[in-house]
Amino acid sequence: METTEITELVDSARLFSGFSSAEEKLLEEVGPEVIPHLSRVTDEFYKALSVVPKAQQFLDGRTEKLKTTHTNWLEYVFRGPYDDKYAAAMYEVGHVHFQVKLPLEFMEGGMTLILGALTPVIAESCGDDMQRFTRILCAINAALGFSLIIMQKSYQLSTLEGELDNFLQVTGMSRKLFDKLSQTNL
Amino acid sequence: METTEITELVDSARLFSGFSSAEEKLLEEVGPEVIPHLSRVTDEFYKALSVVPKAQQFLDGRTEKLKTTHTNWLEYVFRGPYDDKYAAAMYEVGHVHFQVKLPLEFMEGGMTLILGALTPVIAESCGDDMQRFTRILCAINAALGFSLIIMQKSYQLSTLEGELDNFLQVTGMSRKLFDKLSQTNL
Repeated sequence: METTEITELVDSARLFSGFSSAEEKLLEEVGPEVIPHLSRVTDEFYKALSVVPKAQQFLDGRTEKLKTTHTNWLEYVFRGPYDDKYAAAMYEVGHVHFQVKLPLEFMEGGMTLILGALTPVIAESCGDDMQRFTRILCAINAALGFSLIIMQKSYQLSTLEGELDNFLQVTGMSRKLFDKLSQTNL
Repeated sequence: METTEITELVDSARLFSGFSSAEEKLLEEVGPEVIPHLSRVTDEFYKALSVVPKAQQFLDGRTEKLKTTHTNWLEYVFRGPYDDKYAAAMYEVGHVHFQVKLPLEFMEGGMTLILGALTPVIAESCGDDMQRFTRILCAINAALGFSLIIMQKSYQLSTLEGELDNFLQVTGMSRKLFDKLSQTNL
């Protein structure tokens, strides 16, 4: 993806998730409190995945390695920066998820489970400060939504590209010819 | 989609979003308190959409009608039942979103904005009961995740089907021949 396209996608994802610099700053601020508990969130997440039959083939023999990557990413969520490099990394994750044939619902489902597992952790760190709890939860929701939008967009584009490759293989048509024909008014 | 496929998708979506009968029951329980405030959540949501340039072509002249549909759906979230009829309706919404060429990120972004707008409303109704607030938020997160998984799956399948139609139109190949070729080992 071109740099300008990444920037456009990031701008759109920020608006769509309500993720602005205020939310980024808040996450960074609560990071030192939350980060020590994130391996617990990862454990909760993989525990939830362990009862999803369709998920097993993606986990078998790899859970420990995946958990480490997952905790590292969660730590990043509370540290930032949310720059173009982060967006490019999320974009790459979407492509890798396509390559390993991860079904689409794993990404949305994953974020739902992660937000669910993070919520009680944040509650603990907020004591009885409801206002702070609300603000932090909204910031996390926005950050996860932002990341998911980028990841899913990349997954979708890779899927469509993959489908086209499949068609071309079936018909024996060259990409060049297909592009030429598809640009012709039918 | 066949009835057995819908049931399979629903089962998978429930596991992936952590949406069980306990969450359903809780949403139904808080419904009477929350439902009177949902038009405010809808207003917040459409206010957020009003600054997203890509969203304008889908809103122009239709906002009031869309708002009514949206509030009706939100009320359903706090009422249920979450049966196969609801799943089929969400599946249809995904297909309609494909038909009107709504970009993929609108669905994920939409749910992120809705959860963000619902959070302070729930906070208000919980007073200083952090535990209740946490439980309700987790239930809403699960219900929205569940709905989004079904909607996006349908959108994805419609998109792939649409791509195939496009390909067949470009090549002039019949669907029957394509299916035959694609089942042949290449």
